[in-house]
Amino acid sequence: MRIERTMARVSVSGGLWQKLIAVQIYGANTGVGKTVFSTLLGAHFGARSSPTKWTVRYIKPVSTGPADEADDDYVRRYSGSPVSTLFKFNDAVSPHVAARGASHVPSDDHLNQELAKCLQQGAGSLPLEQADMGLAIVETAGGVLSPGPSGTPQADIFRALRLPAVLVGDHRLGGIAATISAAESLAIRGYDIDAVVCFENQSRYENAVYLKQYFEERSISTFDIPWIPDLDGLIPGTREEEAVMRQYYDARSREKHVSEVARCIIDRHATRMGNLESMASRTKQAIWHPFTQHKHVTNAEDVLVFDSAYGDYFQVKETSSSKHSDSALFPALDGSASWWTQGYGHGNPQLSLAAAYAAGRYGHVMFAGAIHQPALELAETMLKRLDNPRLNKVFYTDNGSTATEVGIKMALRAACKHYDWDGSNEEVGVLGLKASYHGDTIGAMDASEPCVFNEKVDWYRGRGFWFDYPTYKMVKGRWVVEPPEGMEEDLGPVKHFDSQDEIFNLDARSPSLRYETYIVQTLDKLVKERGAKFGALIMEPIVLGAGGMIFVDPLFQQSLLRVVRRYDFGPAQGAKSTLKGNEDAWSGIPVVFDEVFTGLYRLGRFSSGSFLGVHPDISVHAKLLTGGLLPLSITTASDSIFQAFWGDEKSEALLHGHSYTAHAVGCQVANVSLEIAKKMQKSEEWSTFRKQWEMRHRVHVKDGCTGGREEKGLWSMWSQDFVIEVSKHRRVAHVNALGSVLAVSLVDSAGCGYNSSASVGLRDALLKLTSEDQIRIHSRILGNVIYLMASMTAKPTHLKAVEETFVSRLKEVL
Amino acid sequence: MRIERTMARVSVSGGLWQKLIAVQIYGANTGVGKTVFSTLLGAHFGARSSPTKWTVRYIKPVSTGPADEADDDYVRRYSGSPVSTLFKFNDAVSPHVAARGASHVPSDDHLNQELAKCLQQGAGSLPLEQADMGLAIVETAGGVLSPGPSGTPQADIFRALRLPAVLVGDHRLGGIAATISAAESLAIRGYDIDAVVCFENQSRYENAVYLKQYFEERSISTFDIPWIPDLDGLIPGTREEEAVMRQYYDARSREKHVSEVARCIIDRHATRMGNLESMASRTKQAIWHPFTQHKHVTNAEDVLVFDSAYGDYFQVKETSSSKHSDSALFPALDGSASWWTQGYGHGNPQLSLAAAYAAGRYGHVMFAGAIHQPALELAETMLKRLDNPRLNKVFYTDNGSTATEVGIKMALRAACKHYDWDGSNEEVGVLGLKASYHGDTIGAMDASEPCVFNEKVDWYRGRGFWFDYPTYKMVKGRWVVEPPEGMEEDLGPVKHFDSQDEIFNLDARSPSLRYETYIVQTLDKLVKERGAKFGALIMEPIVLGAGGMIFVDPLFQQSLLRVVRRYDFGPAQGAKSTLKGNEDAWSGIPVVFDEVFTGLYRLGRFSSGSFLGVHPDISVHAKLLTGGLLPLSITTASDSIFQAFWGDEKSEALLHGHSYTAHAVGCQVANVSLEIAKKMQKSEEWSTFRKQWEMRHRVHVKDGCTGGREEKGLWSMWSQDFVIEVSKHRRVAHVNALGSVLAVSLVDSAGCGYNSSASVGLRDALLKLTSEDQIRIHSRILGNVIYLMASMTAKPTHLKAVEETFVSRLKEVL
Repeated sequence: MRIERTMARVSVSGGLWQKLIAVQIYGANTGVGKTVFSTLLGAHFGARSSPTKWTVRYIKPVSTGPADEADDDYVRRYSGSPVSTLFKFNDAVSPHVAARGASHVPSDDHLNQELAKCLQQGAGSLPLEQADMGLAIVETAGGVLSPGPSGTPQADIFRALRLPAVLVGDHRLGGIAATISAAESLAIRGYDIDAVVCFENQSRYENAVYLKQYFEERSISTFDIPWIPDLDGLIPGTREEEAVMRQYYDARSREKHVSEVARCIIDRHATRMGNLESMASRTKQAIWHPFTQHKHVTNAEDVLVFDSAYGDYFQVKETSSSKHSDSALFPALDGSASWWTQGYGHGNPQLSLAAAYAAGRYGHVMFAGAIHQPALELAETMLKRLDNPRLNKVFYTDNGSTATEVGIKMALRAACKHYDWDGSNEEVGVLGLKASYHGDTIGAMDASEPCVFNEKVDWYRGRGFWFDYPTYKMVKGRWVVEPPEGMEEDLGPVKHFDSQDEIFNLDARSPSLRYETYIVQTLDKLVKERGAKFGALIMEPIVLGAGGMIFVDPLFQQSLLRVVRRYDFGPAQGAKSTLKGNEDAWSGIPVVFDEVFTGLYRLGRFSSGSFLGVHPDISVHAKLLTGGLLPLSITTASDSIFQAFWGDEKSEALLHGHSYTAHAVGCQVANVSLEIAKKMQKSEEWSTFRKQWEMRHRVHVKDGCTGGREEKGLWSMWSQDFVIEVSKHRRVAHVNALGSVLAVSLVDSAGCGYNSSASVGLRDALLKLTSEDQIRIHSRILGNVIYLMASMTAKPTHLKAVEETFVSRLKEVL
Repeated sequence: MRIERTMARVSVSGGLWQKLIAVQIYGANTGVGKTVFSTLLGAHFGARSSPTKWTVRYIKPVSTGPADEADDDYVRRYSGSPVSTLFKFNDAVSPHVAARGASHVPSDDHLNQELAKCLQQGAGSLPLEQADMGLAIVETAGGVLSPGPSGTPQADIFRALRLPAVLVGDHRLGGIAATISAAESLAIRGYDIDAVVCFENQSRYENAVYLKQYFEERSISTFDIPWIPDLDGLIPGTREEEAVMRQYYDARSREKHVSEVARCIIDRHATRMGNLESMASRTKQAIWHPFTQHKHVTNAEDVLVFDSAYGDYFQVKETSSSKHSDSALFPALDGSASWWTQGYGHGNPQLSLAAAYAAGRYGHVMFAGAIHQPALELAETMLKRLDNPRLNKVFYTDNGSTATEVGIKMALRAACKHYDWDGSNEEVGVLGLKASYHGDTIGAMDASEPCVFNEKVDWYRGRGFWFDYPTYKMVKGRWVVEPPEGMEEDLGPVKHFDSQDEIFNLDARSPSLRYETYIVQTLDKLVKERGAKFGALIMEPIVLGAGGMIFVDPLFQQSLLRVVRRYDFGPAQGAKSTLKGNEDAWSGIPVVFDEVFTGLYRLGRFSSGSFLGVHPDISVHAKLLTGGLLPLSITTASDSIFQAFWGDEKSEALLHGHSYTAHAVGCQVANVSLEIAKKMQKSEEWSTFRKQWEMRHRVHVKDGCTGGREEKGLWSMWSQDFVIEVSKHRRVAHVNALGSVLAVSLVDSAGCGYNSSASVGLRDALLKLTSEDQIRIHSRILGNVIYLMASMTAKPTHLKAVEETFVSRLKEVL
């Protein structure tokens, strides 16, 4: 068996059209009457003529065996509608078995695209008269999760289209269970079920009665359908048999049972279309968006309406097209990885099932003084894989901002206790880097220097000092390390490097006398001259995200940490014993790494701190932790930090805790995500990405970093050739690419602030429809920086197509 | 059909024993070989003798029809093990149909308890020798979700026991889909699947091959079992037939296929036991608990190990019993509603499926400038049901603390803009009540007065003023409103009331000249004399939760709001236009209601602010919002607040936003929860609760409150008789009960602080095992206050039993 390995260059549009209703008919099992129902439905719509004339088409994506061909004839004969079969296999077994004998087996993407194309053709060929509509009946094979030719369950193969489903229930003994389970499998995959239908065979099982009540309590319309005529005693294929069946279809397709189903399908379609239509304006009424100046949202159409999302794509309501035959939705690459969270694909059924399992096993259980399996497992996994001998305690919080606040509370308490400072009455600040950002709650904000984000926040008080630092980037095809303007004297002149690896070769570059001198002198001015007190060094390793995707020279961050650890921040008065005799104890002041954005493989490694070859005392993780599904975060700490809260009084403890601390659903999803990540690390895809960066040079960083024995050279999912090409564009100031992150800094006459028109122009162009075979990309900008972020499961061929689109748009627009 | 309506007084223990392995055998459908597999398994274990001798017992909870009886004989004959059938129906149809003709139909609880009892007897009758073990094979009927006698799917009926499952796959055409869907239905309900087994019938479908690969990729062990002998040509019931089958069972039960399954079941049991055993000490290693002084956690056994949770109960690892025959788990009532979050039962399959659906349809999609159905629907529902004409915008956040910070940011900005205060450089505080609490992030902390929670938080700066206020409570059977000690002159003497309703009859009590005078005089001192600036009034309506379950006289809160709205906090300089000509605009300073704990029916009403008959400008909701499953919160605001962020500059906007803002999973679960709540409001259960409070008195509050047309009198899930009885106990200072909340303040010689030994003693006693028919209750204390909180779906008969336990423990201990 040879399954195609070609990957879709462009994802399909969601299966929704103004004038075409496409439904997929799923069976709760084989032999439940899918074909009979599909025929009834087709016959019914074919016979409707007023006020709407319906063009009915019947599509069978995969058929196996001669019996299926007979099915096609059957449907054609009795429904009077044309039948398209997309892929045929001769053997009368499941497609995945039948495909084995075939010379050519379509990939899941190919199959999905062929179905999409067929539906789109159907929509395009409809007459344009207002009242005319089309119905496409897509009949699946077997049960909901029966394998397609590749072996993937068919409900997963066709998920991107997310056609509304009609589920034909099982009327037999055991059929109640089979029908509900089938419906649950559809729900887990994000399908909407327009209707459940069940043949009423007058049996004593009464499945239809039960199912009607069960599903209607859950707001799913359910219908019983009159039973199929008894053909016993009639010879198959004879006129007598045909006459009986024809009478059945003619009569039943006009009766209330089938017309009610038809009405329901039409109504659901109308509701869905109407809802999509009104959502943007209702949103303007009811929603206050995050980080949004609503005065700038002038049109309701500025709001993107998401019908759904799958893999790396949103399905967005189309607003730029006027043709009724066009899909009402378009796929847009989730180019910001949904605000940097996305890791393993939208609608990932594994994560979906993991969430449901934990919800079913625990719901949420209170965490004070208690433990449950997913939380313990996640804590142990994180401590192990962070591979930092200092970290041995996990504190759970809800998101990056609250996790950072906990990190700051921990560090400050440890420092204040040690130096006997009264943090409540004297100002004890943090040390950090300029343009750092740690979240939106007041405590996290206070740990960042004044900037546009906190300018108008009344309770914001910047509490600390933030260093200047050199950055690194690719400029016109060359890697450079560059000091900020006017800082050459302190931080050295621009330096060129042969590769990104060379910049990260800290064994060779360290120690930096220049950096350390600058840091010490700055600290002396603050601490010795002005008497300032600092209780923590907090920084985002390598990349300052919200501050503008700034890539810091790792040597500077390492130097800062080295200096801080040996610097004397004040005479120690407190319980110094906790730090003595413990070589992993903090010294100077506690060091906090905010890996909320940069950790968990976002930069290609489990821990972004490991690039620096040093161990923080506290490390903060969120975003990718749940694979991009749910808020959950952790603050890990060393024992010497933990000891600072040890005491006889409850008030000495870390009195912090959210109601949903360590919620089981998030922890379970995180555990499954980390498992997937582990597999990806050794995947063919990642090895392809790595090779794109190895080929150019042979300079490897020596293994001076922890936690990364398998991760020697630096690499990105964005190819080096692409990065070089982009960097050479005349309107590109510089580029960075590491792990899944690509950041392109544009030259803008209006400056680098939030008014950059270059980045806005490129961002808007990337989302626009141009040619059919190009990808529409939803991206986010930070001032004059436009960035893209792939999921951890992105495919090399797919990203190649994204790169091509990006380059061509860049050239067109700027 | 008459289904018993008796409700379990005591929940069953989770189905786990040291010496007894109980597995439930589920079929992917009927006719897949469940009975043959059960027989093979029984025969296998029965034949094992070294090193462990196994006592095998076979249990059929429900059997229908004569064929099933034949099944029992069959199993007995070939496995050699005794068979217990718990409930028999004669008709050979699904139990829910068969039960219709029966005179007596067991309720789900009864059925579940009979199974639990039968398993417990099995565990108790095992020989005590170290090496001996028991195996209980529980054979279910039909498919995973086949209805039991009451009509409830059997996997839901038996969920409380959460026995490990062996799923017998379907070997027929369509069986792959049926088997995976059945496994997914088990997962959604929180079951662990020990193994999937599939009969290998040499067919061309190759289901076993596919399923093995599919499930093992998902870490579920899968085994194929040799096919059942061909009995064609043999007369049923004859010796010849019996000989063939006996040979099959004898041979196959000893072969590797079945012994591998047996090994897997034994290993999984050992792993589960070992894991439960080690979890507490591993937790002490890896976990830093919220709000915990770890020095006080002296024994590993102080950590509660949750195996799972269902309905209102945790399943906790038993540490106090030493008998091997006792269950390794015990049910403990989740008496703190898992830190006040729980609403609709742990492991609620509807919420579980809702979570999975949203995960499958969206995963998480970025919310900046975008919208999706669950978020829009939730926002619209909240605005509608809050029924406050001022509120018309919803801002999404992650939890109560961050939602409160947003509320404060909103209010302060609006006030500072209006009064032209520079909040960044001058102190603008909040007004509130003493002992209020709004969360653990620095901004939320700063809005509360100094207390034990923030005493050692270095960045905490109390920013505001917090009023004294009178409280209300039941003291020795009488309702009183009482001023704090020494405040009689300002706030009036102790007053007695005939009922709680009378206290809340604000139409009759308002306005309070005394309260308003006190408030105005206090404000004058602060604002006029000292020049203090205030930008918001923030308070928890009716109940101050974390501050110690303090019930505030509603008249005082109403008076505070009335005064604040007309008070002149400073000459208005700013954009006053936003407030003019808009009767719903804020005045004085914006009013924020923190309904995180008190809202969404916790106190019996959708909005707890509605008790006060006034409309806040900003309202904050979390906890119960997702029914107690996931963190999600909203801050709703009025248009005049929204306008304060309207401007040309991005920096003027509300620059706040979490990565997972409005995550689809949380929003969808919230939508389903609110639907359930709507049904509960009209339920028989709630009407029973209401009647318990109506019977005593006929004084009804006039409908002066909004949002509560259907909610006239005050009521609690805790009966009035119980509250009166408890209040009269000599060690009880006072009691409050409203909605699902019960708070009992104990008299303690050590005072009311965090060292109360009375509350600790009662709390510990409630969790201990005493007699078999009493409920073990997990409760939380706040100083000398012990509280209980029921879920929204608690049953009156069940709470009656909880009340009885509480009273008897109270009398024993204090």
